Formats: sequence, structure tokens, C-alpha cells
Amino acid sequence: MGMSQDNLRGFILALLSSVFIGASFIIKKKGLRRAAAVSGVRAGYGGYAYLLEPLWWLGMVTMIVGEVANFVAYAFAPAILVTPLGALSIIVSAILAHFMLKEKLHQLGVLGCIMCISGSVIIVIHAPQESPITSVQEIWAMATQPAFLLYLGSVIVLVVLLILYFAPRCGHTNVLVFTGICSLMGSLSVMSVKALGTALKLTFEGKNQLVYLETWFFMFIVATCVIIQMNYLNKALDTFNTAVVSPIYYVMFTSLTIIASVIMFKDWDGQNTGSIISELCGFIAVLCGTILLNSAKDFDRGSSFRGEHAPLSPTLSTGLFSGNRETLKHDEENELLPDDICLRKQEPY
Amino acid sequence: MGMSQDNLRGFILALLSSVFIGASFIIKKKGLRRAAAVSGVRAGYGGYAYLLEPLWWLGMVTMIVGEVANFVAYAFAPAILVTPLGALSIIVSAILAHFMLKEKLHQLGVLGCIMCISGSVIIVIHAPQESPITSVQEIWAMATQPAFLLYLGSVIVLVVLLILYFAPRCGHTNVLVFTGICSLMGSLSVMSVKALGTALKLTFEGKNQLVYLETWFFMFIVATCVIIQMNYLNKALDTFNTAVVSPIYYVMFTSLTIIASVIMFKDWDGQNTGSIISELCGFIAVLCGTILLNSAKDFDRGSSFRGEHAPLSPTLSTGLFSGNRETLKHDEENELLPDDICLRKQEPY
Repeated sequence: MGMSQDNLRGFILALLSSVFIGASFIIKKKGLRRAAAVSGVRAGYGGYAYLLEPLWWLGMVTMIVGEVANFVAYAFAPAILVTPLGALSIIVSAILAHFMLKEKLHQLGVLGCIMCISGSVIIVIHAPQESPITSVQEIWAMATQPAFLLYLGSVIVLVVLLILYFAPRCGHTNVLVFTGICSLMGSLSVMSVKALGTALKLTFEGKNQLVYLETWFFMFIVATCVIIQMNYLNKALDTFNTAVVSPIYYVMFTSLTIIASVIMFKDWDGQNTGSIISELCGFIAVLCGTILLNSAKDFDRGSSFRGEHAPLSPTLSTGLFSGNRETLKHDEENELLPDDICLRKQEPY
Repeated sequence: MGMSQDNLRGFILALLSSVFIGASFIIKKKGLRRAAAVSGVRAGYGGYAYLLEPLWWLGMVTMIVGEVANFVAYAFAPAILVTPLGALSIIVSAILAHFMLKEKLHQLGVLGCIMCISGSVIIVIHAPQESPITSVQEIWAMATQPAFLLYLGSVIVLVVLLILYFAPRCGHTNVLVFTGICSLMGSLSVMSVKALGTALKLTFEGKNQLVYLETWFFMFIVATCVIIQMNYLNKALDTFNTAVVSPIYYVMFTSLTIIASVIMFKDWDGQNTGSIISELCGFIAVLCGTILLNSAKDFDRGSSFRGEHAPLSPTLSTGLFSGNRETLKHDEENELLPDDICLRKQEPY
């Protein structure tokens, strides 16, 4: 397969991350169910019994482990490899829901799973190898090359335009406004997370990068981007159906991240055309699988494409920010426990 | 892309074949509709007005051109490349039906199309290159190598078992019996078609192969295999829903053809693991797309997975035998013109 050691590590970490994140939904769900059964008060109605439920805490820990694994994966493997693999957590979640929560997996859902897996395999096989990075200043040089500055500039201009001009005018009617802001900021988040992760990795390897201003600057960028991204993801999810938001968000977020990664890390230098096309086809396959898996849920509940149910996608595409996941968790729980239809969003647990 | 000249030729021929075959369904359908409108008697009720309709004849010619292109494609490119690409005719057909017959293409159908195309691209990129063949005796040597003889022997034993033991007992209750016979014979058909095609190609290039007994033997094998295959495909389609038969048939036929081709032509020798896995993933993607495109038709007509409608798959997988297509044409027409529900099978037109 010709996979480098670092790519393999990143791949395994991304895979583990998907398994943990996918499993965490199910475990937390089980915890919530059990807590509701014991106390008789549901979380959505102000009950806090789940805080006494070890299963719920286990779910939280599982999720945090997953997030950390995802973060570390970026330090080893290119974003082109790690980001699309986030879609696998949807599969883990669907399969576990089938076996542990006895939710029926629709025929189309199985097809979606198969597509996601075969697409992921193609992405993994054709993932580019990154040239080893020896200091945070090298990343800084990459981030300040003209091509990436152009990308950065365009993103900032677009985001400012979207926030100041479009958001007040059509933010609540056009789904692309808020998701666009999230996705654009998301691509910058991943790039800065990758920079920070690499710096921390080097630090752990003995080459202390904390003495450089660049490391702290990247940390600041991560925080800023994640906060903006989270803020607008919340707005998008409050305004539109998760089923509408999430596929659009997954497509835009992953595409922009791939573009940013290719520009900044020159991931495709030295790759032949065949590999690049294969990677794109693999990405398309994962995408189709994700969309299919989401629609399958709707088919299961009667009418076609009702678009009322929350799919998992955005949670996967924002795999590294537990803040986002926090926001989505509530939808998630609605999704996994159809009788719990009253869990309010934004409830603090 | 590193595609050889011959692979490229085979690929273009396979693509053209899919376009012609896909288009022929639509053209013939239009011809039938027009003939019915003029004469007032439908083909299914014994009308022969379509024989006076130029559009119907154009459709027939288009189909024959497509079949010939498919046959020639096998002479240039490996079966691993040509056979799965047959699935593209379903896409051509679906898209043309959308524009020319104003049939609505379901969202899932679009997703299926995208899957088939991206899977096909992956198959094309990773198709193995065949070592050039200089005489029919070389193919004879490949066909008589122990490994292929073992495959041949197993196929014959299985087919005999299925015909003599299983067909009388559960042929009419288990869909795998008749489709199994078709698929097993189909893999031999493709291999002998490939041998015959290569021999004819060499003959046209000036190296006359008709003087060798092997060429005539392959011709005999083609005829035998195709007749058996056609016969049992008819039985399968008479006994079971096309929607049940065709995906199973497509999977078994294509898989067995790939296995036979790999054994006989050693297609995977010199290929690295990554390419082989990519090819398989591409095949899976095409497969998922085909299944999805078939199910989309059902969703379009109300209930989920009704399984009453004839999808195109078997016609594609038997792309080279117009006999099979003839048998399927009637289903095809039911499919494309929902109000023509009474076109009887086996009607001679």
C-alpha cells in the first residue's frame, strides 16, 4: 500500500477517534435512558439525574478520548486523510444503535455504510505523504506563502461579507449563509489545529516549540476560529433542520479543508493524476454514503425525505471541537431515542 | 494516469457501447409510443405497427452498434475494465429518460448515478495492463493452464449440479439457481468472447487466426455458452421479478467474470495491493450505485422497495449478447412507459 509510518498512525488515530465518538453517542444515550428510568424526569424537562449515572459519564469520557485522538491524528497525517474519515463515526453510531439500542438499520443505510467504507479505503490508499516538519517555523513559512495568504484573505473577506452583509439580510432564509461561515472558518480551524498539533508533537518529541511566538499565535488562531465556527453552527442549527444543515456543512467543510490543506501543505505535490482523481472519487463515495445514511433514517419513518431528523454529519465534520458536538448532542439524542422528542436544545448537560 | 493505448481504446469502446445501449432503450421506447399513437394498437396486444416506425429501427441499429462496440472492447481491454463499465448504460438510460421521456429522476437516483460514475473512474484508473497477445494459441495456452482448468472444471460441475439437481427441485422457489447458472456460464462467455475478439482483432491486423482450429473452437464455445446463458436468463426472468433477479445477476456475473479474468489473464500480476484494493472498492461503488438507482425507481412510485419493477442491470451485464437484451427489452419497455403494462414477454419484435 506504500503507506508511511506517520500516515498509518494518523489513520489509526482517526479510525479510533471515529469509533470512540460514534460509540459515545450510544453510551450517553443509554445513560440518559437509564437515568430517566430511575428518576422519572427526563433531561429535557430539567432533570439532572443523568449526572449521577456512570454510563453517561463514561460516554462523556469516550467522546473526549475521541476528540483528543482526532486532534492528535492531524499532527501525524494530512487533513486530506483525517477529515473525510470523520464520516466513519456515523457508521459506528448507526451499527451500534442497531445492536445496542435495537434501532432498525434500513437497507439503504447498509448501502450507505458500504459506500462510506469503500470510499474511505480509497482515500486511505491514495493519501499523500507529508514531508516531515522539524519546527513550528516551517509551518509558519507554509502559512505565510503567497498562495495560502491568498486563500486566507479570500476566506476572511467572504466571512466578513457573509457576517456583515448577508447574515442580517438572508441568514434566516438561506441555509448557505450560516453554514458557509462555519465551513470557511472550519477550514482555518483545521489548518491551525494541524499546526498546533504538530508543534505539540514536536514538543513531546523533545524539540520544545513553546518558546516560539508562532506556537502561541496558532493557539490563539485555533481558539478564535473554533469560537466563531461554533457560534455560527449554533445559529445554523437553531434556524434550520439538522438534516438540511449537516450534509451541506459536511460537503463544504470537508471540501474547503481539502483545498486549504492542498494549498498550505502542498499535499498533492508529487502525487500522480491518478492518485488525485482516486482521492476525489473516494471523497465523493464517502459523501454519497453519508447522504444516503442520512436519508435512510427518513425512509425508515415513513415518508420520503421528510428532512426533520438530525443526522450525525456535522458532528463528524467538526470532530475536533467538542463544543460543536455539545451543541449537537441534543439533536443526536432526539435522533437515537425517538420517544424523547422533548429534549430541548442548548440545555446544559 | 498511466493508461495504455489499448486500455484507452477498450475504455472508449466500452463507454460508447454504454451510451449506445442506454440510448437504444429510449429511442425504441419513443418509437413504440409513436407507433401506438399512430395505429392505436400496442405491441403488447399483437400490434406490429412499430415495424413501420423508423425510430424503432433506429433504436435497433443503435443497440446493435452498442453490442458490437462492447464485443470489440473486450478485444482491447481486460474484462476487469469492460464488464463493470456496463453499469454506465443504466445511467445513460436514466438521464435520457429524464430529458427525453420526461421521467422524473429521484434524488436517490442522482446519488446512484454519481456513485456509478465515481466507481467507474476508480476502476478505469486502476485497470491492469494486459501483456500483448500475438496469436490465438497464446490464449489457448492461458485457457489450458491448470489454474484456469480448475476454474473451468468447478464451473462445469456447479452448472451441471444446478441444472440437473437443483433446478428441478428449487429452481422455481430459489432465485439463486437460475441466476447462478447464468452467471457461471456468463463468466465463460466473456472469457471466450475475449478470446474470439482478440483472434479477430489479430486477423484484422493481418495475422490471420482463422487457420487455427483454436479460433473455431472458441467460436463454438461462445455460441454454446451464450445459448445456455440466454436460456436460463429467460427462465429466471419468467419465474422471478426482474428487480430481484437483476442486482443478484449483476453482482454474480461481474464478480465471476473478474475472478475468471484474473485467473486466465493474470490481470493482477504486477499490480500492487493498493491498485487491486482500489479496483475492488471501485467495483463496490458501482455496485452500490446500481442498486441505489434500481431502488430509486421503487421509491418514486410510492412504497419503498416494492421490487416489482424491472431495472436495467442484467441487460448491462449481458451487454454483449443481443439475445438476452431481446428478452429483457419487454421488461425494459414496461419500465420506461408505465402505462404500457401489458407488453407480454417473449413477443417477437
